[in-house]
Amino acid sequence: MEKNTNSLSKKAGLPPGTLIHVGKKKTEKVKVTVFSYDENSCEEHEYQEKENITVNNDSSKVCWLNVDGIHDTDLLERIGQQFNLDNLSLEDVLNTDHRPKAEYYDLYLLFTLKMLGIDKTGTKIVSEQISFVLTENSLISFQEQQGDLFDQLRDRIRNAKGRVRNKKADYLLYRMVDTVVDNYFLIVERFSYIIEKLEERVVKEPDDAVLQEIQQVKKQLSKMKHSVFPLREAISSIIKDESDLIEDENNKYLRDLYDHIIYIIESIESQRDIVMGLKDLYMSELSNRMNNIMKVLTVIATIFIPLTFIAGVYGMNFQYMPELHWKWAYPVTWLIMILITVAMLLYFRKKKWL
Amino acid sequence: MEKNTNSLSKKAGLPPGTLIHVGKKKTEKVKVTVFSYDENSCEEHEYQEKENITVNNDSSKVCWLNVDGIHDTDLLERIGQQFNLDNLSLEDVLNTDHRPKAEYYDLYLLFTLKMLGIDKTGTKIVSEQISFVLTENSLISFQEQQGDLFDQLRDRIRNAKGRVRNKKADYLLYRMVDTVVDNYFLIVERFSYIIEKLEERVVKEPDDAVLQEIQQVKKQLSKMKHSVFPLREAISSIIKDESDLIEDENNKYLRDLYDHIIYIIESIESQRDIVMGLKDLYMSELSNRMNNIMKVLTVIATIFIPLTFIAGVYGMNFQYMPELHWKWAYPVTWLIMILITVAMLLYFRKKKWL
Amino acid sequence: MEKNTNSLSKKAGLPPGTLIHVGKKKTEKVKVTVFSYDENSCEEHEYQEKENITVNNDSSKVCWLNVDGIHDTDLLERIGQQFNLDNLSLEDVLNTDHRPKAEYYDLYLLFTLKMLGIDKTGTKIVSEQISFVLTENSLISFQEQQGDLFDQLRDRIRNAKGRVRNKKADYLLYRMVDTVVDNYFLIVERFSYIIEKLEERVVKEPDDAVLQEIQQVKKQLSKMKHSVFPLREAISSIIKDESDLIEDENNKYLRDLYDHIIYIIESIESQRDIVMGLKDLYMSELSNRMNNIMKVLTVIATIFIPLTFIAGVYGMNFQYMPELHWKWAYPVTWLIMILITVAMLLYFRKKKWL
Amino acid sequence: MEKNTNSLSKKAGLPPGTLIHVGKKKTEKVKVTVFSYDENSCEEHEYQEKENITVNNDSSKVCWLNVDGIHDTDLLERIGQQFNLDNLSLEDVLNTDHRPKAEYYDLYLLFTLKMLGIDKTGTKIVSEQISFVLTENSLISFQEQQGDLFDQLRDRIRNAKGRVRNKKADYLLYRMVDTVVDNYFLIVERFSYIIEKLEERVVKEPDDAVLQEIQQVKKQLSKMKHSVFPLREAISSIIKDESDLIEDENNKYLRDLYDHIIYIIESIESQRDIVMGLKDLYMSELSNRMNNIMKVLTVIATIFIPLTFIAGVYGMNFQYMPELHWKWAYPVTWLIMILITVAMLLYFRKKKWL
Amino acid sequence: MEKNTNSLSKKAGLPPGTLIHVGKKKTEKVKVTVFSYDENSCEEHEYQEKENITVNNDSSKVCWLNVDGIHDTDLLERIGQQFNLDNLSLEDVLNTDHRPKAEYYDLYLLFTLKMLGIDKTGTKIVSEQISFVLTENSLISFQEQQGDLFDQLRDRIRNAKGRVRNKKADYLLYRMVDTVVDNYFLIVERFSYIIEKLEERVVKEPDDAVLQEIQQVKKQLSKMKHSVFPLREAISSIIKDESDLIEDENNKYLRDLYDHIIYIIESIESQRDIVMGLKDLYMSELSNRMNNIMKVLTVIATIFIPLTFIAGVYGMNFQYMPELHWKWAYPVTWLIMILITVAMLLYFRKKKWL
Repeated sequence: MEKNTNSLSKKAGLPPGTLIHVGKKKTEKVKVTVFSYDENSCEEHEYQEKENITVNNDSSKVCWLNVDGIHDTDLLERIGQQFNLDNLSLEDVLNTDHRPKAEYYDLYLLFTLKMLGIDKTGTKIVSEQISFVLTENSLISFQEQQGDLFDQLRDRIRNAKGRVRNKKADYLLYRMVDTVVDNYFLIVERFSYIIEKLEERVVKEPDDAVLQEIQQVKKQLSKMKHSVFPLREAISSIIKDESDLIEDENNKYLRDLYDHIIYIIESIESQRDIVMGLKDLYMSELSNRMNNIMKVLTVIATIFIPLTFIAGVYGMNFQYMPELHWKWAYPVTWLIMILITVAMLLYFRKKKWL
Repeated sequence: MEKNTNSLSKKAGLPPGTLIHVGKKKTEKVKVTVFSYDENSCEEHEYQEKENITVNNDSSKVCWLNVDGIHDTDLLERIGQQFNLDNLSLEDVLNTDHRPKAEYYDLYLLFTLKMLGIDKTGTKIVSEQISFVLTENSLISFQEQQGDLFDQLRDRIRNAKGRVRNKKADYLLYRMVDTVVDNYFLIVERFSYIIEKLEERVVKEPDDAVLQEIQQVKKQLSKMKHSVFPLREAISSIIKDESDLIEDENNKYLRDLYDHIIYIIESIESQRDIVMGLKDLYMSELSNRMNNIMKVLTVIATIFIPLTFIAGVYGMNFQYMPELHWKWAYPVTWLIMILITVAMLLYFRKKKWL
Repeated sequence: MEKNTNSLSKKAGLPPGTLIHVGKKKTEKVKVTVFSYDENSCEEHEYQEKENITVNNDSSKVCWLNVDGIHDTDLLERIGQQFNLDNLSLEDVLNTDHRPKAEYYDLYLLFTLKMLGIDKTGTKIVSEQISFVLTENSLISFQEQQGDLFDQLRDRIRNAKGRVRNKKADYLLYRMVDTVVDNYFLIVERFSYIIEKLEERVVKEPDDAVLQEIQQVKKQLSKMKHSVFPLREAISSIIKDESDLIEDENNKYLRDLYDHIIYIIESIESQRDIVMGLKDLYMSELSNRMNNIMKVLTVIATIFIPLTFIAGVYGMNFQYMPELHWKWAYPVTWLIMILITVAMLLYFRKKKWL
Repeated sequence: MEKNTNSLSKKAGLPPGTLIHVGKKKTEKVKVTVFSYDENSCEEHEYQEKENITVNNDSSKVCWLNVDGIHDTDLLERIGQQFNLDNLSLEDVLNTDHRPKAEYYDLYLLFTLKMLGIDKTGTKIVSEQISFVLTENSLISFQEQQGDLFDQLRDRIRNAKGRVRNKKADYLLYRMVDTVVDNYFLIVERFSYIIEKLEERVVKEPDDAVLQEIQQVKKQLSKMKHSVFPLREAISSIIKDESDLIEDENNKYLRDLYDHIIYIIESIESQRDIVMGLKDLYMSELSNRMNNIMKVLTVIATIFIPLTFIAGVYGMNFQYMPELHWKWAYPVTWLIMILITVAMLLYFRKKKWL
Repeated sequence: MEKNTNSLSKKAGLPPGTLIHVGKKKTEKVKVTVFSYDENSCEEHEYQEKENITVNNDSSKVCWLNVDGIHDTDLLERIGQQFNLDNLSLEDVLNTDHRPKAEYYDLYLLFTLKMLGIDKTGTKIVSEQISFVLTENSLISFQEQQGDLFDQLRDRIRNAKGRVRNKKADYLLYRMVDTVVDNYFLIVERFSYIIEKLEERVVKEPDDAVLQEIQQVKKQLSKMKHSVFPLREAISSIIKDESDLIEDENNKYLRDLYDHIIYIIESIESQRDIVMGLKDLYMSELSNRMNNIMKVLTVIATIFIPLTFIAGVYGMNFQYMPELHWKWAYPVTWLIMILITVAMLLYFRKKKWL
């Protein structure tokens, strides 16, 4: 639960469709680019500030409008008017705390999900919301900041590699979502590695910090789960939907995507299981060590206590203590002490207390 | 489970529809106000005590009747007769222990939910029940006491800002529920902060009070959960319903509301998870500290016990103890004691017991 | 799991419909009373032993036959023949271990549930099974013993107060079930109080008995849950059923009843949660106390051990110990001992071990 | 998980329908008996070894063929051919590790369940599989060994007591299954008693063996659960099925059976809950006792440590120790020691450490 | 979560249907064999490297093409073209991290599952993915390496034993899946044995390694669960499907298979339960032992501490200590010490502390 997660409260009392950016402003400049392509040609354009954004009217071409930086509500409103977007959709785009979801409007599909990454410390998940608006021949993607996972895809479009140039906007949407989901595997892999390291530390040198790190990993997995789980439902609702926005022949790709998401969800669940097990292991490892220390220390005390007693006895000042005057009393006392010690050590060893 | 939560038992044995106020009487005065508006005009009126409450017959106008203070069963009965409300509905309005729900009657929709707030201590949730009766062109809202979250909304109606003046009573209902739900985010945010502070305390100075506070937070989250969970079902049943009370074009707002509720539920669930984790962390933090203390103390005892034994030995009064008469015996004894101490310290350090 | 709960085993191997009373015989005398009423008149009659029980043939009147004491299988068989009841139904009535359920037969509805009460110790739930047979114009109720919650209802029938005299037998059934359910609130309230008291004791003086009481409360809540949970399904199946036994206009009362049951179930669930939390709190409270005791005791020991060592050193009998002959040696030794004590106390305080 | 449970692995790689007996051979001799009855007559016959088994062709008579001992695969194959049974069915009959299930084939219904019993130690559940094949006018029952719960039923058939002689084979099946299920109540009752005894021991004298017994009871309950749970589904599928094998009028008996199974499942679940609670109770009882011992011992040590220190002080050999020469020094020292002891005891008592 | 499990990330950003082998290359050589048979004849052929793979055009014959080693993407592509396989299917075949699943394409069924085995240490599960493509008269099976469980099946085909030569390709698929599932029983049996051994060790000599082994077994069971669980759904979807690829008369075999899978899943679940119980047993066993040690040691210390005090008292050097000069003082002191010891021992024994 980070600070900005709850800034939804900023909107309390405002009417629906009020365009307010919820979340951290992650970039200064807003960058809007457009790809317009069909099988034979591909044009690329970066809009200047204040330049008018125009809709793709040539239904034979696919238009991909990408917006980096969503805090500029004016720009979004202009895009919304151009593409006839409902204000509620824009509100969802602006609200970076939204759960991933797919929602059908009359003329378009709104799809939001989270791009996940690992921060510089290598242990925390950072998430960026990406929203898509899919119309019949256009795809608009809204990202929180510049820099994304789609450069490889852009090259493929420019160079007409693969299927993407021969397909409609729905395939482009699939390819982008697929790229984001594929990236989840990297996160899962990273946590697999972190958990393995934690496990080693728990078994070999369980220091105080381990528990907090375990708690930390649990939180990150929980965050990831919250980003990925709703995606299952979202994809599933697209597969089941019968609108014309998604061509039937692309359903097999979506089913494939669905399988990947199930796989990731299962991985997260099993990692959570392992982490819970780690905590138990740590606790018992710690208590084992403590017990061993206490055992050794207590054994030492137990051995010396009777000896000290014997020494005490012959330190008494009674006038009539015959032993005090025996010639061999002192060495015999030592002998007895040694015998007692040896006997106790043997007993303890036999009982496996040492 | 507060005192008044169970006062439902007051009603044991009475026939259904018996109007009895269940809950604390939170206000003395009952205040009834009415807004009557359409696109062009807006009238506002506060009813005097004993003044007759009249029904809105002009179907082109929206009438919002707001009742602050529900313990005056006579007044409610009069309103009920005016608006043809079933006695069972009034019973639900009067019963402040009711679960949030939406129930369709022949001519109106009854909707109850909880307004949540934080009390003066900043750690406890206070809840006030608010019930709505939505008829074709009227909305009646029943609150337990004066003072609510809707002043901003009242201003918008008065000043004809936003959509509300152009819409029907169902939109007004939506706007009010939305305001209540938006306010939940503040509570979630507040608990987010409380949990963060608790977490710091657990790690830095886990005193005895922490556990009780954790237990307290758990209870509050549980209370919040019980207030919010049933809302999901209630909203969902309104969305699915096909009666004419809710215009189809407003369904998108309700779906938006539904999304918010899901988000809040998920936040509460994940906060509960974190709090449970906190408890485990606290317990192990505490036991770690205790163990460390015991370890140090036991190590001190363990070091001195052999030394005391040696001192004991040369305190013995045997007549024949050659060492006693050696010239350097005393300093050599000290030397041996120091050596033993150093050896033990080194051993303990090597074993990482210190 | 009480003794008689499992006496179902008495019936092992017998054919279905064999009438055997399962459960404790809670009363000696069997009492059969009948109310026969319509809007205008109300007759009341108590059957003598061996008197013939007659069926209500006047379809304009509602007949309520109440049987207190179900161990008299002969009587039940006679009633069964009069009302054309299936032997399986009678078997269910006789079996006091039955789960609450609603079952439709060709001509009647069989409904069983549990009346709950608190025993003399104020901590244990006692349950009595009550079964209803609802035919078109009659209601037969079977109770295990005399004394019930319906005296207020009987007065209302006698005095024609409220709706009950104007309604059919199905409304009477509703009113009786409602009375039983309303009584559950008292139990919930009672346990709310018990748990509150337990919580105080856990925090203030957690003695050994608390855990057993917590276990006891958990068992009682579990028993209550088993009595109430199946009721939800039973009521729900009546609401959904389309037979003519229940008039449509009474469905709203049943829905209301259903809401109450949900509320009780949620209360029980949340009480169970709190009790589980209490157990954890108790365990940690106990271990905290123990730790504090051990800490203080160990600190005392740790302070005296070095002092005793010093005393031991100057108790040695070496011939050549220069300190022994110094004039201020004794007071200086005391001084050193005091300094050591003060230093250790300060150190422990700084470390917050005291 | 017993040895033979997994012997299913014997069949690895063999084609389906290969008849192999899976499980322990519990009897040497195989005994095949047949009852053939209608309302008016009843014949009983025991087949000799190698005697041909004939099918009942007289559709007005019910034929009950009972096979004790299923390891004779030849015999089963012969029966299978006579009754046109699918080899897969016979395989299921032979496999004593099968889950209870009901499966419809073209002309017959296969139903398998477990007869449960308590072994000689009185603490372990033994299970025997019984399979039924129900055709239109015949019932074949396969048991693992001789000796069963059905002698009472056989007498009723012989003596034409009760309904069984007037009914078809489906009613006989119901009666047999009912007998087996009724017997489950005995097991539940037995475990109720075992758990009660365990509970007493946990509270009064929690020795080391208790935990292992708790673990043992948990295992047995788990075994029972695995035998009973699938039965719910099996019975339910028969109730829902619309084939002619089960007469409609017998459905009410099956629903009754279903209720019993639900009751047993709930009893097992609640016993498991109680056993889990017992484990917690035992653990805390044990730790309480340990803590009390340690507390007393530590208090003793704490009292003597300062006293020993004082004795040590006056055991020092300094030349100049004025107290040593005071006349009342020794008794005063004793006095001081006694005062210290009393003070500590009072303090400990006040703190409730004793 | 093994290393290669996550190598799915290799594919991030690539378009769907890109053929990349995910997983370890388990074999060098790729071996492709084909069986072509009908009732009367059976031909067997091993393809040479680079030899063209031809499709079976004779619809009266069943063709089983088996590929050992799937890292040769060229070969797979050639097979894919011959059999008109979708690239997405080939991608699934190549991805050894896939969940078991059944997926219907236009002309064929893709079925993947895991063959499980035990590695050399006897405690770890190794899994190999096997994928099937079932067309109308052909079955292609893809395995990761040579050596499988199907040699017995191959012999049956060669020698025309059993039903397999009379049946279509769907029966062959069933027989292969059945063989794999039957082999799961061996794994379950093996873990049954491992858990039994662990249980003995926990009770008899719970050393530190046990907990790690328990954790290890839990992981393996979890791995097995993840391999077997999805199979239930896969088989179930084949049973429900109405395509012509599976003949109706083979459905009974699939239902049988389904039963086996349910049985295995239940076994795994109950083994997991037992292992969790083992962990608790181990923890309490360990803490019991520790407690017993501490108890004995503390008792020893407690006995000697008062004795040492007495010795200390008579070691004091007061000038006026009358006891010191009594004749029997020394033996009386010994007597007192012995009496104290005996009294304490008796007390401890009575309290059952020893």
